[in-house]
Amino acid sequence: MSRTVIVGGVAGGMSCATRLRRLDETREIIIIEKGPDVSFANCGLPYYVSGEIKERSSLLVQTPQSLKARFNLDVRVSSEVISVDSDQKTIEVKTDEDIYTLSYDQLVLSPGAKPFIPPLEGIETADNLFTLRNVPDVDKIVTAIEETKPKKAAVIGAGFIGLEMAESLANRGVEVTIIEMAPHVLPTVDYEMAAFAHNELVANGLTVLTETSVVAIEDEGKSLVLATGEKIATDLIILSVGVRPENGLAEFAGIELGMRGGILVDEDYQTSVKDIYAVGDAIIVKHQITKEDTMIALASPANRQGRQVADILGGMKRKNKGSIGTAIVRVFNQAVASTGLTERQLQALNYEFKVVHIDGKNHAGYYPNASMVFLKLLFNPTTGEIYGAQAVGQDGADKRIDIIATAIKAGMTVDELPELELTYAPPFGSAKDVVNMAGYAALNIMEGVTDNIQLSELSEKRDSGAYLLDVRTPTEFEKGNIPGFVNLPLNELRERMTELPKDKEIIVSCHSGQRSYIASRMLVQNGYQVKNLDGSHLLYSTVNG
Amino acid sequence: MSRTVIVGGVAGGMSCATRLRRLDETREIIIIEKGPDVSFANCGLPYYVSGEIKERSSLLVQTPQSLKARFNLDVRVSSEVISVDSDQKTIEVKTDEDIYTLSYDQLVLSPGAKPFIPPLEGIETADNLFTLRNVPDVDKIVTAIEETKPKKAAVIGAGFIGLEMAESLANRGVEVTIIEMAPHVLPTVDYEMAAFAHNELVANGLTVLTETSVVAIEDEGKSLVLATGEKIATDLIILSVGVRPENGLAEFAGIELGMRGGILVDEDYQTSVKDIYAVGDAIIVKHQITKEDTMIALASPANRQGRQVADILGGMKRKNKGSIGTAIVRVFNQAVASTGLTERQLQALNYEFKVVHIDGKNHAGYYPNASMVFLKLLFNPTTGEIYGAQAVGQDGADKRIDIIATAIKAGMTVDELPELELTYAPPFGSAKDVVNMAGYAALNIMEGVTDNIQLSELSEKRDSGAYLLDVRTPTEFEKGNIPGFVNLPLNELRERMTELPKDKEIIVSCHSGQRSYIASRMLVQNGYQVKNLDGSHLLYSTVNG
Repeated sequence: MSRTVIVGGVAGGMSCATRLRRLDETREIIIIEKGPDVSFANCGLPYYVSGEIKERSSLLVQTPQSLKARFNLDVRVSSEVISVDSDQKTIEVKTDEDIYTLSYDQLVLSPGAKPFIPPLEGIETADNLFTLRNVPDVDKIVTAIEETKPKKAAVIGAGFIGLEMAESLANRGVEVTIIEMAPHVLPTVDYEMAAFAHNELVANGLTVLTETSVVAIEDEGKSLVLATGEKIATDLIILSVGVRPENGLAEFAGIELGMRGGILVDEDYQTSVKDIYAVGDAIIVKHQITKEDTMIALASPANRQGRQVADILGGMKRKNKGSIGTAIVRVFNQAVASTGLTERQLQALNYEFKVVHIDGKNHAGYYPNASMVFLKLLFNPTTGEIYGAQAVGQDGADKRIDIIATAIKAGMTVDELPELELTYAPPFGSAKDVVNMAGYAALNIMEGVTDNIQLSELSEKRDSGAYLLDVRTPTEFEKGNIPGFVNLPLNELRERMTELPKDKEIIVSCHSGQRSYIASRMLVQNGYQVKNLDGSHLLYSTVNG
Repeated sequence: MSRTVIVGGVAGGMSCATRLRRLDETREIIIIEKGPDVSFANCGLPYYVSGEIKERSSLLVQTPQSLKARFNLDVRVSSEVISVDSDQKTIEVKTDEDIYTLSYDQLVLSPGAKPFIPPLEGIETADNLFTLRNVPDVDKIVTAIEETKPKKAAVIGAGFIGLEMAESLANRGVEVTIIEMAPHVLPTVDYEMAAFAHNELVANGLTVLTETSVVAIEDEGKSLVLATGEKIATDLIILSVGVRPENGLAEFAGIELGMRGGILVDEDYQTSVKDIYAVGDAIIVKHQITKEDTMIALASPANRQGRQVADILGGMKRKNKGSIGTAIVRVFNQAVASTGLTERQLQALNYEFKVVHIDGKNHAGYYPNASMVFLKLLFNPTTGEIYGAQAVGQDGADKRIDIIATAIKAGMTVDELPELELTYAPPFGSAKDVVNMAGYAALNIMEGVTDNIQLSELSEKRDSGAYLLDVRTPTEFEKGNIPGFVNLPLNELRERMTELPKDKEIIVSCHSGQRSYIASRMLVQNGYQVKNLDGSHLLYSTVNG
């Protein structure tokens, strides 16, 4: 009888174990989990802090007992693998009571990623500082909230977990300050899309400090010292500045590691050491767009990888095709979703790319309670390859990013997005969905029907003497406009076109880019040099708070 | 100066006109619309009846004036084209005042589809009978409701418009009876998926009669005579038994027509008559999966076609690639969505196919207010080609069908569905989305890991002496079970397996198919002959009301 030992009993590990059992009734399957729980709802932890998830038991999706009964799995919690002998094919397991040796035929590592703890001066004295990875962590945070009744909290790091924890604490009545070293919150999306989340946080009463570093912790965690010298008083600190692969055991086993300490595996999830496999947040995968090594700490790829390695152990052919990294976070009433590469990543890779921003609706505008879905699409203007997309909105941002993530996985090009036939009835969508519209807009750029500039390029255009034209109505213009822009409403443009200079480049703006595009078409056909300000005043006013 | 005349000013026609203007400032563009409105919200009409859309003006998305101001379009409403001379390239236009002749360089027909009126005895005497196509129709219905205050209404035909109107009337307090000739409501989806809608209608107090024909109308519309001889009293009748292409003008022009009178066009939307193009509900398109001729009366393809023909007139290369027919309808708190081919269509085509039904959630089950998304996937078990999908649910059915519609358009196979990386955070999705799970289930069938039967095959299996096994808990089993099934809970199956016969085929059922699949894997590995009852008790109890 073959014995498979799986280290780590959450997403990847448990998907591997249950699939392996379904494929093989006779194999011995042992899961060793360091923590007290397996298969817990790790992505749900912040919502237990907020109180949205009321019962702690809801977090425990499976137990060792339920897994024994249904899948005949030998689940050993509160058990840590402290050594591996890959020649003898044994591991040493440490429990509260003892240390014992266990042999394996195959070892599957699914250790996950651990919160990064920066070497902040005074951090060891702060017993009000918490990170969030598992149920014991969330228990500590909830206990601290209940016992110390914090008035103020500081969240260091504005990634997904940071923002979810910030919202959860705010929902419990705590005054929250978010401190992020990067120029904007949500470093995994671009600055102008992150601005929607930033504004939503501020609108909900949170303080958001970007480009701000904490350099020390003083007063047993009651004071954070910033790089500026300024001090911030706090009763509770959440540290969420990213994760690192839990690679200690792999390193001990002599397994080859790669970038940022990630575990190197081949397409069959085999590490450099025979009969040891690895899956989940700790491994290095190929990015499906760049084909370069990357690490993607997300539940969906981890689950897929766990199942695939079970299939491979069960004798089936599977290959890890890599990941594109699709993610979403809720920030109060806004969702921010993304897939593929960001503009910043594309710039760093020196790819040729263009961007379109499209302002659409979650469903037909004439049906009640329509809300905005604002979509950013990044693509290659020569080949039409879709590089990535980001969306924000109260409702439906998830759907649009899921559609585009599917299109990217399928290798679709932007000219195929208008062809998509999506569900449409007034409560659910639009006859031309924002995804279709983004495809049209991208195709217009590829085919030279129109061209645009991004908001980040505006000051350069202004400096070079471009004529700045705003084609909204005077009423809209007076309510707020971008410095330097001259108002000439679209519906008067045909008659008053001669007021515009033919010897200057004209940058056209409107509310969100639709009318400026129409204007640009009129002007181009009349011999003007025109570029559309992508995202127009909507993006400008969002970025400028 | 070239003159393009567009006949029909709604989806396809108006998309053509506005795109053409953006491409060509100098061309003369005239739109001739028979009705009093252009660009109205045709899909929103039922929601104006219900009162959800409160303002009539919301239905009028554009007006001739707004289209003149922005796009320099010459929009002529209440104008009917009564003849075409394709040699002289002229048309005759009839208005309330006169008839005039207009020349064209290109003529684009976007006439749409009209409600089918069956030759029911007495129909001409029923002034309380209405069809629904445009704003004047909805005005008449709303006026009739307000003036005659109907207590009872009959909706003949249970397609999209029929069900939307039935719900809208019920929401206004009218007692509604739906009468459908086919064996189930929503003939565009399969019977077991339609059952969810049927039950929702009944739960909301409506009477639903299927396999029921109206043969005559008596008493000036106050009584409907059924084929059984039974009579149904009613104050108001909505007739919604499908649409027919509005092909009169095309026929007059000598344009070749095809199946069911649809207008034949080539990939460039050219009809058989030179310089006459056609788009929208009235044209015949290629079904992208079957490659056969079909007609698809939906807003999304019509809009795309209108834009594409404008591109072609503007000198760009476009091809009509065909359609797959993605649709959705809301039935009170349930949505029913579909894309591609149904099981019934696949049977008629004699395709090799398999089906899986997956019971999932709109978002993480441990996050509050999760609701069911029930997904049906149809595929080729040899090639993995995705033929179609249907989904029902309170929330998120649209998203799953959009994802699969995208996968179909991209030519993805079922083994690629588990690879999809979809947005996941507890309020938005699951780490393994129901779409991923459907892919896994289909792949299991393709690879022989498991096999299933459909509910429709159960009685045949019962008759042939199969052993029927229900692996739910005794508590679940006692609450309701399928006749002939024996209960043996999954968690006891390993110990009690010898109770089961090895010489009979075993059909395994549970709540929705997940536990029965796990059971089938245990049994198959122990030498039993097993098939999973797809959809299990959930589907059985839904179909059996």
